[in-house]
Amino acid sequence: MADQKALTTRAQDFSAWYNEVIMRAELADYSPVRGCMVIRPNGYAIWEQMQRALDDMFKELGVQNAYFPLLIPQSFFSKEAQHIDGFAPELAIVTHGGGKELEEPLVIRPTSETIIYSMYAKWIQSYRDLPMLMNQWCNVLRWEMRTRLFLRTAEFLWQEGHTAHVDEADAERFALEILKVYRRFAEEWMAMPVLTGRKTDSERFAGALRTYCIEGLMQDNKALQAGTTHNLGQNFAKAFQVTFQSDQGTLEYVWNTSWGVSTRLVGALVMTHGDDAGIITPPRLAQYQCVIVPIYKSDAERVTVLEAAERILRELRQGGVRTHLDKRDGLKPGAKYYEWEGRGVPLRLEVGPRDVAAGQVMLARRTGGAKSPLPTAGLARALQTEMDVMQAALLEAARVRREQHSIRGITKASFLEFLEGDGGFAYGGWCGDAACEATIKEETKATIRCLPDEEFRSPEAPRSCMWCDRPAVTEAVWARAY
Amino acid sequence: MADQKALTTRAQDFSAWYNEVIMRAELADYSPVRGCMVIRPNGYAIWEQMQRALDDMFKELGVQNAYFPLLIPQSFFSKEAQHIDGFAPELAIVTHGGGKELEEPLVIRPTSETIIYSMYAKWIQSYRDLPMLMNQWCNVLRWEMRTRLFLRTAEFLWQEGHTAHVDEADAERFALEILKVYRRFAEEWMAMPVLTGRKTDSERFAGALRTYCIEGLMQDNKALQAGTTHNLGQNFAKAFQVTFQSDQGTLEYVWNTSWGVSTRLVGALVMTHGDDAGIITPPRLAQYQCVIVPIYKSDAERVTVLEAAERILRELRQGGVRTHLDKRDGLKPGAKYYEWEGRGVPLRLEVGPRDVAAGQVMLARRTGGAKSPLPTAGLARALQTEMDVMQAALLEAARVRREQHSIRGITKASFLEFLEGDGGFAYGGWCGDAACEATIKEETKATIRCLPDEEFRSPEAPRSCMWCDRPAVTEAVWARAY
Repeated sequence: MADQKALTTRAQDFSAWYNEVIMRAELADYSPVRGCMVIRPNGYAIWEQMQRALDDMFKELGVQNAYFPLLIPQSFFSKEAQHIDGFAPELAIVTHGGGKELEEPLVIRPTSETIIYSMYAKWIQSYRDLPMLMNQWCNVLRWEMRTRLFLRTAEFLWQEGHTAHVDEADAERFALEILKVYRRFAEEWMAMPVLTGRKTDSERFAGALRTYCIEGLMQDNKALQAGTTHNLGQNFAKAFQVTFQSDQGTLEYVWNTSWGVSTRLVGALVMTHGDDAGIITPPRLAQYQCVIVPIYKSDAERVTVLEAAERILRELRQGGVRTHLDKRDGLKPGAKYYEWEGRGVPLRLEVGPRDVAAGQVMLARRTGGAKSPLPTAGLARALQTEMDVMQAALLEAARVRREQHSIRGITKASFLEFLEGDGGFAYGGWCGDAACEATIKEETKATIRCLPDEEFRSPEAPRSCMWCDRPAVTEAVWARAY
Repeated sequence: MADQKALTTRAQDFSAWYNEVIMRAELADYSPVRGCMVIRPNGYAIWEQMQRALDDMFKELGVQNAYFPLLIPQSFFSKEAQHIDGFAPELAIVTHGGGKELEEPLVIRPTSETIIYSMYAKWIQSYRDLPMLMNQWCNVLRWEMRTRLFLRTAEFLWQEGHTAHVDEADAERFALEILKVYRRFAEEWMAMPVLTGRKTDSERFAGALRTYCIEGLMQDNKALQAGTTHNLGQNFAKAFQVTFQSDQGTLEYVWNTSWGVSTRLVGALVMTHGDDAGIITPPRLAQYQCVIVPIYKSDAERVTVLEAAERILRELRQGGVRTHLDKRDGLKPGAKYYEWEGRGVPLRLEVGPRDVAAGQVMLARRTGGAKSPLPTAGLARALQTEMDVMQAALLEAARVRREQHSIRGITKASFLEFLEGDGGFAYGGWCGDAACEATIKEETKATIRCLPDEEFRSPEAPRSCMWCDRPAVTEAVWARAY
């Protein structure tokens, strides 16, 4: 049941607002296990929609799903030096099983490169076996000290893709192909505009050659890394002896990529579109795209209205609109509106006796504006159009907001001023020195989100580092981030 | 790539045959982690088809998906006495996280009653919140000493449903509703006939009031428990204080059910339908229902044949037939036949230059029989009919086989003779004494698979226990089992 207390507004306290809208929409809840959340049906339904869309996109690229063990021998992690350094502090360790102490402790996967490439070594013999393109949907665990619903939890759900290729060019091409998929998903499904670009060395995945990312800007003007894709080079191939006979007859190491997005995307959705009344789900990802609320006073009205509502429900479902009829008795229409608003359902249809007589319904949009009467004839098509418009408007609104909170050609002074204010994405020159990057992070809490892809770069390439004034080697985008 | 060595036959060694067909079809592989398997893409694709079918059926009953933590505080298990007794020997324990020893060890879920009902206690207040119907698709871990691909592995994938109801009648009704779903899935999708019935007290789920099951009979005449559904009574409600205010204003404990099927079903599929050439996938669960193998000698033929094959591929896909075109060069048609046979694809279309000229294809069925020419016009519909026939024939063949290996009205002597022979399902009277049941198990390795539902009972109720001759309280079905 919806909690009827007024929500904290975004302006008052964005972080409190975030937790409250999630709890009120019943997307998730805190569990008795430290750092672990429960994903409730309303939240899981969004994740299911996300999974389906992404899974179809992966399969179009020839990727196949598989499943690898949850537990990984601890020794596997040590085989790739950077990898163990990166993940060691976050590991959960199983020391006992079946009532006995284990000979070798097992690690709960924080990510699966090690176990997967140990299997690839067995399956790959020839260049004919390549590329090998696999993905798994699973849970992973990273011991986190500070957790946040969906954004950072010890256990989370994700997909992790792992591929092997004959050469660096093909691995690089594939890693970038996936980056495009992630961007397309973020924009077309989540209505969340993202920057794409490369991570700096200090921000890249432990064990990767290069990491690419999509970065969104949340309504509090903090950045959120929403997905990453890595060209792993031959690091894991060498650690796990993943070799193949080339078409020239030579024995070569494969080139790998890995890539993932997680339930963090549900948090990104909330922080991109939510308002002070609750979450807003873009139509393409909504469990229910439309909810029908019947309005009646007498028993006679109830019969008439419910009959009409059931008919509308059937027609909308046939027309491909995911629709729910809220028939609950003993709950007033206003309370229902409030609840469905909080849950972010894009469209609400109100059906009363007069509407039935007039062959119409009243349409209320979650994104606001006046209610409009719509004829019941041809309703499914009309709602499809409404949803297309809303989906596009949500993306556009988020893009405008992001651009309003982006600044280009920064100097140290303007950057600091920008961060003092609302903050957002700050574009400027960077000397390429990791020490300079670290100083900036320490003094401002802002990090380089990415070295942006060409499309996002400023028309004029920056000449000097915005912080230290040495010559710039590239443009970078800074922001405070989740 | 398919291993071209001849397979062990079922008659030679059923168990070796089982492992070999799985490895050859690349359904799964052994992992470097003790007792854990890797589910390879061909095996996972079957599981995905199973998931989709079951998930739709659950949702039709109003069940919603959710996700609960992998890790459960060890103390939770002790709250329900039978539950901890049943699961303690199989638990894997996490003692360290984030580089530190944990204050309280965490258990990797072997099943999730404890964590889920601890959350239900928070979410359920009133009878209006009931029934609460949730399911999760996840991995679980039970430390097993003897493991077997798909059938018994330390980690496995499953769904576990958990519901809460106002009274015993509603919980019982729901547990049995799910039993019907499981049976329908087994018969209509897996083409696997199953007995339904209740487990004896010694075989029921640790913490349940009553456990119901579906039981299949594999080709080696061993039984396989393929799914269970439990009426948990108020055991967990009392352990976790899951209470609600009734419509009379009194405070009551809820009644729970839980139910699950797992990746074990993939093993059941293999052992129900496979033959000496490999696995046979029933059409409704096949990743590829049809594979097209082009046949050509010259380059000119290759162009003509591939063009026709691509057109057929498009038309079949449009016609709803999940089809794959095997365009691999450098692999002879015969090698392709061999590989797709091993993988169990129901239908194979051979397309050569003469077929193209004649506007036809040659159809080969995985279940045998002569190849038949089919006109390319109207092919999708013709294949749909072929698949319906094959799906029904697989079920019927399995049913006939099961009945041929069932014996009714057993005495101790005929039972022992039956087990000496091929074995199978043995129906007879049982005194209801757990000690007698235990003796039978010890002496014969056969267990009571279920106390069969009315539909499966013998026309005449047995009067005495087939083993001890005391009066029978019920009919039971014995078998040696996986």
